[in-house]
Amino acid sequence: MVPLLPTINDPADLRKLDRPQLKQLADEVRACVLDNVSRTGGHLSSNLGTVELTVALHYVFNTPEDRIVWDVGHQTYPHKILTGRRERMPTLRQLGGISGFPQRTESAYDTFGTAHSSTSISAALGMALAAQQKGEERHAIAVIGDGAMTAGMAFEALNNAGVHDDARLLVVLNDNDMSISPPVGALNRYLAQLMSGQFYAAAKHVGKSVLKAAPPLFELAKRFEQQAKGMVVPATLFEKFGFNYIGPIDGHDLESLIPTLENIKQLKGPQFLHVVTKKGQGYKLAEADPVAYHGPGKFDPSVGLVKPATAPKRSFTQVFGQWLCDMAAQDGRLVGVTPAMREGSGMVEFHQRFPDRYHDVGIAEQHAVTFAAGLACEGLKPVVAIYSTFLQRAYDQLIHDVAIQNLPVVFALDRAGLVGADGATHAGAYDIAYLRCIPNMALACPADEAECRQLLTTAYEQNHPVAVRYPRGAGVGTEPALTLQGLPYGKGELRRQGRRIAILAFGTLLYPALQAAEGLDATVVNMRWAKPLDLALLLEVAQSHDCIVTVEEGAVMGGAGSAVAEALQQAQLLRPVLQLGLPDRFIEHGDPAKLLAAAGLDAQGIAQSITQRFGAA
Amino acid sequence: MVPLLPTINDPADLRKLDRPQLKQLADEVRACVLDNVSRTGGHLSSNLGTVELTVALHYVFNTPEDRIVWDVGHQTYPHKILTGRRERMPTLRQLGGISGFPQRTESAYDTFGTAHSSTSISAALGMALAAQQKGEERHAIAVIGDGAMTAGMAFEALNNAGVHDDARLLVVLNDNDMSISPPVGALNRYLAQLMSGQFYAAAKHVGKSVLKAAPPLFELAKRFEQQAKGMVVPATLFEKFGFNYIGPIDGHDLESLIPTLENIKQLKGPQFLHVVTKKGQGYKLAEADPVAYHGPGKFDPSVGLVKPATAPKRSFTQVFGQWLCDMAAQDGRLVGVTPAMREGSGMVEFHQRFPDRYHDVGIAEQHAVTFAAGLACEGLKPVVAIYSTFLQRAYDQLIHDVAIQNLPVVFALDRAGLVGADGATHAGAYDIAYLRCIPNMALACPADEAECRQLLTTAYEQNHPVAVRYPRGAGVGTEPALTLQGLPYGKGELRRQGRRIAILAFGTLLYPALQAAEGLDATVVNMRWAKPLDLALLLEVAQSHDCIVTVEEGAVMGGAGSAVAEALQQAQLLRPVLQLGLPDRFIEHGDPAKLLAAAGLDAQGIAQSITQRFGAA
Repeated sequence: MVPLLPTINDPADLRKLDRPQLKQLADEVRACVLDNVSRTGGHLSSNLGTVELTVALHYVFNTPEDRIVWDVGHQTYPHKILTGRRERMPTLRQLGGISGFPQRTESAYDTFGTAHSSTSISAALGMALAAQQKGEERHAIAVIGDGAMTAGMAFEALNNAGVHDDARLLVVLNDNDMSISPPVGALNRYLAQLMSGQFYAAAKHVGKSVLKAAPPLFELAKRFEQQAKGMVVPATLFEKFGFNYIGPIDGHDLESLIPTLENIKQLKGPQFLHVVTKKGQGYKLAEADPVAYHGPGKFDPSVGLVKPATAPKRSFTQVFGQWLCDMAAQDGRLVGVTPAMREGSGMVEFHQRFPDRYHDVGIAEQHAVTFAAGLACEGLKPVVAIYSTFLQRAYDQLIHDVAIQNLPVVFALDRAGLVGADGATHAGAYDIAYLRCIPNMALACPADEAECRQLLTTAYEQNHPVAVRYPRGAGVGTEPALTLQGLPYGKGELRRQGRRIAILAFGTLLYPALQAAEGLDATVVNMRWAKPLDLALLLEVAQSHDCIVTVEEGAVMGGAGSAVAEALQQAQLLRPVLQLGLPDRFIEHGDPAKLLAAAGLDAQGIAQSITQRFGAA
Repeated sequence: MVPLLPTINDPADLRKLDRPQLKQLADEVRACVLDNVSRTGGHLSSNLGTVELTVALHYVFNTPEDRIVWDVGHQTYPHKILTGRRERMPTLRQLGGISGFPQRTESAYDTFGTAHSSTSISAALGMALAAQQKGEERHAIAVIGDGAMTAGMAFEALNNAGVHDDARLLVVLNDNDMSISPPVGALNRYLAQLMSGQFYAAAKHVGKSVLKAAPPLFELAKRFEQQAKGMVVPATLFEKFGFNYIGPIDGHDLESLIPTLENIKQLKGPQFLHVVTKKGQGYKLAEADPVAYHGPGKFDPSVGLVKPATAPKRSFTQVFGQWLCDMAAQDGRLVGVTPAMREGSGMVEFHQRFPDRYHDVGIAEQHAVTFAAGLACEGLKPVVAIYSTFLQRAYDQLIHDVAIQNLPVVFALDRAGLVGADGATHAGAYDIAYLRCIPNMALACPADEAECRQLLTTAYEQNHPVAVRYPRGAGVGTEPALTLQGLPYGKGELRRQGRRIAILAFGTLLYPALQAAEGLDATVVNMRWAKPLDLALLLEVAQSHDCIVTVEEGAVMGGAGSAVAEALQQAQLLRPVLQLGLPDRFIEHGDPAKLLAAAGLDAQGIAQSITQRFGAA
């Protein structure tokens, strides 16, 4: 067979194909995804699962005039391949290359930038109502996974959308029954029930025999379908929100997808299409273990993932996971809470060993934090493991339910700082600024693995909220102690005695700072805490040095360096302060080391900035 | 009749009463609420609506051992009256007096501090699971209004709770069909349908005839009730989330409430009781106009609210509302978005004049912001009117969906700074810190009414996100122009030329700063923008003065003063900077002028701080 994919430069080309050719095209797209991801690394299972859906949506709808909003957006590789970016796929998630998520600046087909879960219905509703206001006929389509449906925001949007009877809005629930962690919650049970046995079979039958009929027959089909549904499940959850519910249909069967979408296209008002797909579809290894193939590194598709010959360096995530188990074994009050990030947060072992004290609350950061506050009210000691970027979702809950009430909740903030391939949307750049302005909060910034464990213990020992921020991946590799010994609360340490210039480091950039200090003969302080500041140490150092440099892997504006500047001003100690950290712009995806260097936060960059400002040693 | 209320010092006293006495007690509590609120001001309609529910809950459940979490918490005056705070009611919401919301520090009966909507189910679930883990038998009860049910967080909690089959969790939906604005959304339609006609009547009948039977009969009653429900509404939304749904029942009928609650108390697993109440119940004027009596000031109960003889000073809220209408009349692209705060945000006139461009999305801040981003993608110009404190709920959406995509959304941040009687939970203390660290964001701080209108126009003219923050109530009373003329973007102005000391004011504290400057002969600059800073003006002033003072009604940590300190350091201009603003602690309720004075932010306090630091003129 002649390959089709090389002829598809945008969806208009796709729409010129005959319908029977689409199956071949889908197969080629799937091969293209597998081939590219195996070379670059990236999201795999989710993209293999959306191949046919993507083909069908671009075939039926008039993109980019019609808007597709992909929830989370890590399932958009087929979409990128079909919308003019096939040849850029080898640059995926690399510095200067295309993003692993949709980006408005990258393509007109990327109508909305996504990356965090559950925003798609809100955005698509905005687009649909804007079209209505402007008298334009275009459709807005949100494609959302079953995991993302557990976030409250999706319900807020459904609730708001359901009353707009004229909106050309289609929500496609891509139900693959598996978000990153095993899905949890009542909604998931409900979906499982919807899909099981008789009903699914009946719906499939209806879809095959009636829905494919010509449009004039559609009204009849719809009535028949409603009756069929009425016999089994009288009213679905989504109909209660004012949507017209259609499905479930097989999301890998183009012969179901295309006629159904063509019918839906004729309908006005909020439509809800329930599509069932399989993560990893078409690649046996990923089908068998979609979690392992969720976001693999490079691999040989014919072999699959292999265990690396040398064990990878221990990550901060693993240090946290080990600490959590050890502390839980010692203290029965400890409870672990995660918003659907068991693997990413290093909680698999904790879950296995302490199932009754493990709470995966679903993709529901707001609920996670307030739920933890409720646990703390009863004398338990909750540890909320959450990425820095996801805590942004629960900011008000942190302020109200934890900080105002001054409850002892520990926040283990993973992925603080730059994260690399996932780019700006996943960077933990703002937590120092947005946490330190909140009364009662404390924030520790361990410099390495050993200190991370110690500061987690210190955080746990306090009687008020404390966050501990640590970066993605590994640090310098210091061996954590086996004991559960903390470090003094709110205290830093002098790491190198130099002269004239004092570098105050917050977090893992301590190590490049130490390197930079060699050539400058600068003093280096490991501050350890962004709040409270070690004021005694700070003043002592400031008094004995001419120039102060602060270093942090976080936004300079309002960050730990600002805290230092504020404290010096308050102490009426006038010193020049050079604040090094992340600049006031969003930093795209790429290799973290290169990104840090570009931001001037490697040893060389730090030394250069200091010399530029304060002269050489 | 001998009054009962004076004998009730805590719920244990209440539980000693005979059931027939409870009606009298409820009437006395209602009179006590009305009497007190008419003297102090405060929330009225909601509290008149929860009298019987409060009596019933404390009668049936063993408080404080059993935990009641009141969602939002502005309906807890009957609860406060019955839990030992009757005599402190005259101090309500005043400096040093009891709070208008539940507070853990105030009473053991206030199990969870609330004030923002929709946290109760999460907190109560935490408490229920903690009890389970500790082997304690206590119940946890969340009382949540129908308005609060539209926030996604409530769904996150329902979804998580539904799978905990053993949790002693009761969710009471207090359905009064009216949050502050008229309720919106599909859920509301659904509740209305549930309650209408036949079904409500049938349920009431079931409640009266069967549910009151003795516990042994309960199982039968339950089965009968389920059948009755099955005939009309086969499965409720809440049952889909794994709850056992009971109701709706009449929330003012103690003879329905008490037996139903007693039955529910025997059941394990998540229970959902749907109670129907009337806001303002028992006070005819409030029943007739619950919106007017939602949060009245002092009034004579026998007369009701009267229009003040002199018109109150125009508030910033009104200035915004007028600007919104004027700009909408001029620019057809303008769209107004509010998360259920039509009255509070001054959008009533806009709603009436531009119904098609007005979107009340329900209590759903997350959705509101992303929805606005969707509108902006299509070339519309959304203005999101949101209190500073509520924007905390949509922080991640602001970062991801608006700022990263650099979309032109205007945020009209009402209630920035201290808010007075509502206390710490409603203060807009952190927005400068949490917004200025976000790339692409700009933040204007008008000093008075005229400038507020001008800066809203400037914000609207930009092609990126801009927030405009303004305080509750009125300012100095400058008359806004009728035109739609903006001010230069990112530029401040010199207001008073003095010597030695320069005061840089951000926002309405410009006026006390000007007063303070008189005695000191200080220079005063109206900075107008916290981001971007007017760097040229700042450096000019810094170069020509010895000392810099910054003044803002927001947290000092990371605030506008820090921005000034950062900028001076970056410009290598070493000057002492005195940062005046809100301290690093939560500030309780009280008269705003007194609170500002206590924080040293009135003219006298500002002058005093400056003199203390930099000496007299």
